[in-house]
Amino acid sequence: MGELREWELLEELGRKVSGCGDDCAVLPFAGTQLLLTTDLLHQASDFPPGTTPYTMGWRAVAASLSDIAAMAGRPLAVVMAASAPDWEGLFPELLAGAQAACRLVGTELVGGDLDFSEELFLVSSALGEADRPVRRAGAQPGDCLFVTGPLGSTHLALRLFSQGKSARANELFRFVPRVTEGLLLAGEATSMIDLSDSLAHSLHLLSRASRVGFVVHPEKIPLVPGVELEEAIYFGEDYELLFTARPGALPPGPWTEIGQVVEEPGVWLSQQGKLRKVPDRGWEHGP
Amino acid sequence: MGELREWELLEELGRKVSGCGDDCAVLPFAGTQLLLTTDLLHQASDFPPGTTPYTMGWRAVAASLSDIAAMAGRPLAVVMAASAPDWEGLFPELLAGAQAACRLVGTELVGGDLDFSEELFLVSSALGEADRPVRRAGAQPGDCLFVTGPLGSTHLALRLFSQGKSARANELFRFVPRVTEGLLLAGEATSMIDLSDSLAHSLHLLSRASRVGFVVHPEKIPLVPGVELEEAIYFGEDYELLFTARPGALPPGPWTEIGQVVEEPGVWLSQQGKLRKVPDRGWEHGP
Repeated sequence: MGELREWELLEELGRKVSGCGDDCAVLPFAGTQLLLTTDLLHQASDFPPGTTPYTMGWRAVAASLSDIAAMAGRPLAVVMAASAPDWEGLFPELLAGAQAACRLVGTELVGGDLDFSEELFLVSSALGEADRPVRRAGAQPGDCLFVTGPLGSTHLALRLFSQGKSARANELFRFVPRVTEGLLLAGEATSMIDLSDSLAHSLHLLSRASRVGFVVHPEKIPLVPGVELEEAIYFGEDYELLFTARPGALPPGPWTEIGQVVEEPGVWLSQQGKLRKVPDRGWEHGP
Repeated sequence: MGELREWELLEELGRKVSGCGDDCAVLPFAGTQLLLTTDLLHQASDFPPGTTPYTMGWRAVAASLSDIAAMAGRPLAVVMAASAPDWEGLFPELLAGAQAACRLVGTELVGGDLDFSEELFLVSSALGEADRPVRRAGAQPGDCLFVTGPLGSTHLALRLFSQGKSARANELFRFVPRVTEGLLLAGEATSMIDLSDSLAHSLHLLSRASRVGFVVHPEKIPLVPGVELEEAIYFGEDYELLFTARPGALPPGPWTEIGQVVEEPGVWLSQQGKLRKVPDRGWEHGP
């Protein structure tokens, strides 16, 4: 999938497009901030054989809603552009999945565009609002590092798809965008990102945006049963929120502390009293 | 391109997605209305050989901005998701084209998503605002019918592309979204749509939404030099605005009166004192 090249391109886009570089664009409007984001998913990269149209529609929309969640935003509306070789039978189920994901977080699919193409493409764009958007920049040395849930669900789902265990794999693929958690963290989290990329890459993105480093305690990383630590660190597409907060600032909630923010930029695992550098990479280039 | 099937799907989408059925979704927010729209363009359908990456980026973004214009909206921001086999050399030019189209109408590209796929796909989503959005419903018998400019530029561009005259074809492809005209028409136009589809289909959409009919005077339809009347009526993708207004309500402006609104739903050409029914179709199914 050429993940590194995609990352490089996205960083180039970030340099050329002002305001780009968070999970959503932030637009001051009528005394608040509007959030706007778009996500492209397509058959070859994102939907292994066995993925149902319902799951595809759900996942496409949920990916954008996760970006709204990652800025502590409230979703206002979603539109979806979709293209497929043949819509016969596909359209109602795909639409139902997209609408279900929207309703789950209190928003609605309000429009779209449809076309025909050899490969199936789904592009969802979400609009949101945030009084106090949380950005990738803002983590400070001494802050604690958290995730909102166990990592590895997408990695496990892909394994199950490849074993033909599609029912369970589809369930895992239909993740819940962490909108409620994001809203709870408005004004509390000092920096935030969703784990659409790997934990490793996401930490490096936070590190570069906040100009700080992270020491992660691997034994504290919550894992989906059946997933290994390295898979959880380098795989990604889990759509949990990764965020920082001042020590003691957060009440107990649906999150797990997994590390600390340090001054020196970079990412380390603390294992058996030693620090091991975590490279900025995804699974394709993994061990 | 299976236009009729696409239209049927879009109408099915309109029935299943509440609020869908105008050029943009309309979202009441903070005492005004936000507009949200998304458009998908891809190589096989939308970019003939000879189309430059700059033109592709321009046209993708301009298609969404035209939807904002068609609701008498002011664009606030655009995001673009894009996928291509290889971004080498393509990316900077495509981005420059997209940014130029945004700037032309006073807005900005604020973010995007990038990926790799066999076919090139561009999906732009635009956010706008309208105090007084103009919808497809609202035309009344006795109103006059207008277009903002000559029809046939895309048809002519495709002919020029096929003749290898790419420079002029690219120019024609980089249309100006009629945002200024749309804003002038806020509070004046009684119904409006952009001509992303053919004049024939767009009139039928207005007819169904407003429950009225249209009598068009073909000799009044402004044509791009070199384009025949039938081509202008059935081809589409011209992105001019088609709208109605009370007689005498509009000052002279960048628009041409081409017909009247009548009570009986349907679309007719008035030729040599006779009315000829205009079928609801595009060029592929044309004479």
